[in-house]
Amino acid sequence: MKENLKKYIVEFIGTFFLVFTIGTILFGGNQSITGMLGIGFILMVMVYAGGHISGGHYNPAVSLSAAIRGALPWKNYAQYFISQTLGAVLAACAVKYLVVVPPIETIPTFDIPALLIGEFLFTFALCYTVLLTATSKSVEGNSYYGLAIGSVVTAGIFSTGTFCLGAFNPAVAIGLLSMGVIRIKLAGITLLIDLIGGIAAGFLYKFINCDD
Amino acid sequence: MKENLKKYIVEFIGTFFLVFTIGTILFGGNQSITGMLGIGFILMVMVYAGGHISGGHYNPAVSLSAAIRGALPWKNYAQYFISQTLGAVLAACAVKYLVVVPPIETIPTFDIPALLIGEFLFTFALCYTVLLTATSKSVEGNSYYGLAIGSVVTAGIFSTGTFCLGAFNPAVAIGLLSMGVIRIKLAGITLLIDLIGGIAAGFLYKFINCDD
Amino acid sequence: MKENLKKYIVEFIGTFFLVFTIGTILFGGNQSITGMLGIGFILMVMVYAGGHISGGHYNPAVSLSAAIRGALPWKNYAQYFISQTLGAVLAACAVKYLVVVPPIETIPTFDIPALLIGEFLFTFALCYTVLLTATSKSVEGNSYYGLAIGSVVTAGIFSTGTFCLGAFNPAVAIGLLSMGVIRIKLAGITLLIDLIGGIAAGFLYKFINCDD
Amino acid sequence: MKENLKKYIVEFIGTFFLVFTIGTILFGGNQSITGMLGIGFILMVMVYAGGHISGGHYNPAVSLSAAIRGALPWKNYAQYFISQTLGAVLAACAVKYLVVVPPIETIPTFDIPALLIGEFLFTFALCYTVLLTATSKSVEGNSYYGLAIGSVVTAGIFSTGTFCLGAFNPAVAIGLLSMGVIRIKLAGITLLIDLIGGIAAGFLYKFINCDD
Repeated sequence: MKENLKKYIVEFIGTFFLVFTIGTILFGGNQSITGMLGIGFILMVMVYAGGHISGGHYNPAVSLSAAIRGALPWKNYAQYFISQTLGAVLAACAVKYLVVVPPIETIPTFDIPALLIGEFLFTFALCYTVLLTATSKSVEGNSYYGLAIGSVVTAGIFSTGTFCLGAFNPAVAIGLLSMGVIRIKLAGITLLIDLIGGIAAGFLYKFINCDD
Repeated sequence: MKENLKKYIVEFIGTFFLVFTIGTILFGGNQSITGMLGIGFILMVMVYAGGHISGGHYNPAVSLSAAIRGALPWKNYAQYFISQTLGAVLAACAVKYLVVVPPIETIPTFDIPALLIGEFLFTFALCYTVLLTATSKSVEGNSYYGLAIGSVVTAGIFSTGTFCLGAFNPAVAIGLLSMGVIRIKLAGITLLIDLIGGIAAGFLYKFINCDD
Repeated sequence: MKENLKKYIVEFIGTFFLVFTIGTILFGGNQSITGMLGIGFILMVMVYAGGHISGGHYNPAVSLSAAIRGALPWKNYAQYFISQTLGAVLAACAVKYLVVVPPIETIPTFDIPALLIGEFLFTFALCYTVLLTATSKSVEGNSYYGLAIGSVVTAGIFSTGTFCLGAFNPAVAIGLLSMGVIRIKLAGITLLIDLIGGIAAGFLYKFINCDD
Repeated sequence: MKENLKKYIVEFIGTFFLVFTIGTILFGGNQSITGMLGIGFILMVMVYAGGHISGGHYNPAVSLSAAIRGALPWKNYAQYFISQTLGAVLAACAVKYLVVVPPIETIPTFDIPALLIGEFLFTFALCYTVLLTATSKSVEGNSYYGLAIGSVVTAGIFSTGTFCLGAFNPAVAIGLLSMGVIRIKLAGITLLIDLIGGIAAGFLYKFINCDD
């Protein structure tokens, strides 16, 4: 019980800082391509800080892929999802208090097929990277997993940021919805396709690392 | 004695370079979001260089959280604080000699509650990262602690730089005060809230890593 | 057979994401020097994710240097080349679907000797880095190989991007050709000189690491 | 003999790529603060690639500090210096062939005391970082030394680039002189103060790591 509580606290803290950093960077007046680097940095930091306690997911799609791969017990999945969601919602409140978020009309509309491809591909890449660098027995104890996990998100934002949200994370979609900058339909589509990306990565991992 | 002297020298050198880099980047004519990356880089460098000697704090809030967690003997705390302060003050003198610091009136005024939230959150995140990556027995010998510690400061600057100083470090507040770019009230508030952030991280660590 | 199939899948996925990221960053509207960092990031990520399965080449010049050095069986070289090419071509199709690639006339013409020097030097540097950091017995188990391999490509793009393609990778040349942004002659020259860079690095490695 | 020859080749190659990258980034049309990141990247890459063979100095000031600390035999110092100088000069020739270097009059003049302070401080920081991360027995086998070494140079360029060359390396000063972009007096002063920075770091290391 106590062991699990620690994990939920770490997942809450990590997701809070991830969504807080995203919101303040996007809407705090420092918005620039260089500023986006901060998003990958904070994810990397939180993965390194909490990875050895909770796995350092901060992302329901990552937790789903980890559950499929066998690195997270299924019975803990709902609590991970809830801890991550609470962190995201609290971060959204802090962002709304601290900076001026833009009215919902100013968010660009995305072409749905392009949005689906962009979110799917990089959520898949993120979960594939997490499973291969942070849960593979053959690379246990490595020091690069956080760097790889943070950097795939930055690469994804630079790559797909013009045609999808660049969330690659249902908790981020929930956070942006709570800030009031995206509509529920966009949040829902992003949440679903990100979970599908996680499922795809989980099954691919089981195929290519079947002896693990 | 000799062992401790080495630690104070390393803390002095590291804090000197941290504050020197901050001052010259902010006021040397290279000021830009990309230039800010240099702040996280120099902290990372000094953490990697001196971490195995002094712990690589360069920050009285980090030293306080380390003392609470049991990674720094309380009897050395004052000397750490003094070494860090001396490094910061000497760096401020060098910065004032080398570049033209702006008159104190040009510094923006901050909304106090926003400033407190921003400084608290990222000083907490910094100390949380230091304790979990650089003092946890379960990840001893890892090679990522410096990268995580430097990067959380960069992420914090990108995230909160528009509504607080982005110091996350009492020695940096003292350094900016010594350069004459902030008033004593702002320096004092920042110093206090940063120490509180360190205290919060120290106690949280004791709760989640209680068996260490 | 199954073991080899995994390797080809990993090479396919990694090359797909490398070429996809290059194409969307170059032509997706985020084009900037900072955006280019995403290219080195995705290569680093894929090297860390797949390195322990396939070697993480994603580049026929790297595979060639690895074969010369004895780190890749010659009998697998053609399959590596084909997997990488398929990943590059599929990525090119996705890029063409998602973003507006510029007409072929808008690509600058390069001075051929300068192009050859630039592509040769950094393909050599890339393969030299791969062989020394990821295949040397004396540094087995290190955590930096992916960071070094991704960063040499970023440094190469910043260094030579004004006088050559900055591909350093025949699969990237094939990808750009498939997107229709370069002519077959430029793709062919780049492909050949990149393979020659890989051959040079392979033989140099055998000379300086002859006891391995 | 053969063992030493390998080291000289590695020092030659690494210094060549360092100076080549500096020259092409500064004068190739990609000049920007972000572009400067490429300088730290290539140094990091070459340190990781060649560190386990030659120590990965690529810098006569670093070699001098390593000799004082006992990590490089004094009898090899001259050959290291020569290999590094040859690499720098050949790189300068390549840069002059490939890009249009500016006429010597366009280089800003520096205030001499400021130049001396800037070059001294960061050459000291660079050598201090090399000795503590790459030659200390207590951190043998770490994976961060190259990241720290490359990043201290980037931080130094961002910090001092407006009031000194930002070379922190006699071979870079020789390279810039060979390109014809700085006068011999500026190259000479930089070379001397950089060697003094290396000497200071060597003796400080002996004091704080005296049991090594």
